[in-house]
Amino acid sequence: MIDRIDQYLTSTHDAALRSLFDVLRIPSISTQPDHATDVIASADWVATYLESLPDTRVETWPTPGHPAVFGEWLGAGPDRPTILIYGHHDVQPTGDLSKWSSPPFEPRIDSGGRIVARGSADNKGLFFIQLRAVEAWLKGVTDGCPVNVKILIEGEEEIGSPNLARLLEEKRDQLKCDLAVVSDTPHWRPGRPAISLGTRGITGLEVKLIGPNRDLHSGMYGGSVPNPIAELTRMLAALHDARKTVTVPGFYDRVKPIPNDLREEWAKLDRDVQDDARKLDCGLVGEDGFNTLERRWLRPTLEFNGITGGYQGPGSNTIVPSWASAKITCRLVPDQDPDDVQAKVKRYLETLAPPGVKLEFIPRRVGCPSYSIDPNHPALAAAAKVYEEVYGVHPVRIREGVSLPILPAFKSILGADTVLMGFCDPECNAHSFDEFLDAGEVLRGARTAARFLNEIVRG
Amino acid sequence: MIDRIDQYLTSTHDAALRSLFDVLRIPSISTQPDHATDVIASADWVATYLESLPDTRVETWPTPGHPAVFGEWLGAGPDRPTILIYGHHDVQPTGDLSKWSSPPFEPRIDSGGRIVARGSADNKGLFFIQLRAVEAWLKGVTDGCPVNVKILIEGEEEIGSPNLARLLEEKRDQLKCDLAVVSDTPHWRPGRPAISLGTRGITGLEVKLIGPNRDLHSGMYGGSVPNPIAELTRMLAALHDARKTVTVPGFYDRVKPIPNDLREEWAKLDRDVQDDARKLDCGLVGEDGFNTLERRWLRPTLEFNGITGGYQGPGSNTIVPSWASAKITCRLVPDQDPDDVQAKVKRYLETLAPPGVKLEFIPRRVGCPSYSIDPNHPALAAAAKVYEEVYGVHPVRIREGVSLPILPAFKSILGADTVLMGFCDPECNAHSFDEFLDAGEVLRGARTAARFLNEIVRG
Repeated sequence: MIDRIDQYLTSTHDAALRSLFDVLRIPSISTQPDHATDVIASADWVATYLESLPDTRVETWPTPGHPAVFGEWLGAGPDRPTILIYGHHDVQPTGDLSKWSSPPFEPRIDSGGRIVARGSADNKGLFFIQLRAVEAWLKGVTDGCPVNVKILIEGEEEIGSPNLARLLEEKRDQLKCDLAVVSDTPHWRPGRPAISLGTRGITGLEVKLIGPNRDLHSGMYGGSVPNPIAELTRMLAALHDARKTVTVPGFYDRVKPIPNDLREEWAKLDRDVQDDARKLDCGLVGEDGFNTLERRWLRPTLEFNGITGGYQGPGSNTIVPSWASAKITCRLVPDQDPDDVQAKVKRYLETLAPPGVKLEFIPRRVGCPSYSIDPNHPALAAAAKVYEEVYGVHPVRIREGVSLPILPAFKSILGADTVLMGFCDPECNAHSFDEFLDAGEVLRGARTAARFLNEIVRG
Repeated sequence: MIDRIDQYLTSTHDAALRSLFDVLRIPSISTQPDHATDVIASADWVATYLESLPDTRVETWPTPGHPAVFGEWLGAGPDRPTILIYGHHDVQPTGDLSKWSSPPFEPRIDSGGRIVARGSADNKGLFFIQLRAVEAWLKGVTDGCPVNVKILIEGEEEIGSPNLARLLEEKRDQLKCDLAVVSDTPHWRPGRPAISLGTRGITGLEVKLIGPNRDLHSGMYGGSVPNPIAELTRMLAALHDARKTVTVPGFYDRVKPIPNDLREEWAKLDRDVQDDARKLDCGLVGEDGFNTLERRWLRPTLEFNGITGGYQGPGSNTIVPSWASAKITCRLVPDQDPDDVQAKVKRYLETLAPPGVKLEFIPRRVGCPSYSIDPNHPALAAAAKVYEEVYGVHPVRIREGVSLPILPAFKSILGADTVLMGFCDPECNAHSFDEFLDAGEVLRGARTAARFLNEIVRG
């Protein structure tokens, strides 16, 4: 049986890549309002794809923002488990276009066999791998899929899934499932898959400090009025101490120590990441007392994502600017509450502001808590087994530093745990320039995901 | 005689304003390379104007950057003093166009009688006042001007006059003069002229801190790599202490105490500026131990003119950015050396940089030292007299916080002192939006400047 699945996936692989390229061409940047119609176009692509599968019912779910697409195939019958596959068809902004080797929305396969395009890894290429696994069961064999399958591909993940929780509430019955599967994370190393025990949460805000009500001549006024850049940098600098510990009062209140068994396992993996420093041309630095993987996986952070103020053009413009602003996000670990942390950061910034200036905040619209799955959950054993079959190695046990709001939402609203099946390179440049996905991974990944749908029935 | 000068200026005032509007329409922004032809156009306007004056020889002087225009009328004869009038035909960038009440290069007179346009005050409107005074002597009376007149209007003042010093060296003989007159400063208060004893100098640099060689996903990497915004803000915050004293080692080495007579005079004037806080919607704050005017006129500063790093668009982009940069300028007081201060700031920033990151510097191309004129110079008495004649009040004794590189250059290269004759409102929005010049000032200013050319002969 599984041979025929492999055969189907191999024989249709080239056509599948062409299909994937179609959706990669759509600049579905959810955070930029002028790309709203593109996010509709990428939803349409998903709906059309799902409608091409036998006996699959498809719905497009509008939201106040960008639409999600839902599909279901229930042919396995009520005595078989139901798996919910989740992904997102929206993408991050491109950043500086001049940094890309080729235009981000003109996908190509480079000389190393990599599909280079915005969204190739995060997440179009990876949810496509899961869809291909379902397609193989529905089109490649006659008995259909061993499990019932529901599919939810949303369009607002890169802006924090602001409407997804309400959608899950509203469609709770339709989305009912025994387990969720999400492919939106990387391998541990190329060819070395990983089983992930959870993700970090996220919250954040934008802070704007306003001094004089207009830009002033730095000769006429300099030295005698508050300089918003000087005041804001002083405030931001006060958010970490010399040990790179976050100084926001109460920030670590609910943070638990990292379990000893994980510290031991990760200490071995940590050696692998020391190469990063060379590849990134910078040091690996962070909170005192923790190694790199601990800092990424089970320690909360306060990061500056952007800062702006004063003259931005070439040359000089000798002003005391009217304002300066910064975008801040915090990654959260188990038991930290996004709203609570956001409020604490805001309150601390207020205490740090000097007299004579004004502060404005734009809170990040939605946050999400951290997510953790029981390390002994049987689905993790099933995932480990199929990875080993296809990749020939036992997957390592890790966590993810990224935030996937859908995971805590699936748990709290649908009562379902989630297995994270990663397929991209850990240095796939998600959110950066030259994002890529190994083209061969589309086939290997689909073979693995198809096996998982079979294995989970026995688990 | 002076009545006929006044008569000429009054009867030609409307035509003069139309002529001034012609040059205000030219967007001669010297710091922006795509406006280079506009700076040539504004030079052409000046040359054409000067060529219209009787017996006046005009030359356009090219530079590696933007051209300067030179004119001379030597009809007063060798036994009379020679006055050099200096100004600049280039302007600052407009900044955010949406902040302007009307397009910055479409001059108009508003309901308050103000000419609103970029360059109306700084400096097209003000050098035009001086040219009008010369025009009145050459066209309004038959005997010509009481003094010989040389005129130099350059095109690179707003980028720090990088080629002017060499031009002064090369043209030293042609520019030989007994005194320079510059109108590029404001009145103390509207209707209350000021005699200025000098200007601050300037130096600066742009600092760029580079962490990872590309933007990284703040979930995957956050907490484990240097965040350039965090590191740069920490470094910038360390450049001032809690008393708002600059912490750069040696920064104040050559700074002398403010003379007691000036402290006493300025203490009275300082009350006038307390209204600023209300108009600017911010506090008046600065270095401990000094009042607002002392901070602006005889204390050095280190100001941040711009800061940039990470995501600049709407919404959020959860990255650890690759780099962050800041534009810094220092205003200097007598005896501080621009190169020395620049080197000290650079060296201190280097010591503040953490390991694991790279620093890059773009030094400000040219700096200039502070300038001071002897408070007992006879030209100051002449200026005070003519101001009192036209404005009906005795001018106050001040300094300027701004930097005019030409003043120390005139002194060191031509051996000439400079009288600063201000004519714009102190809140004329130079370098900001809605820059303006009172249209009536064009007439009052020209009457004053014309009297000065007569008075200086007797001085």
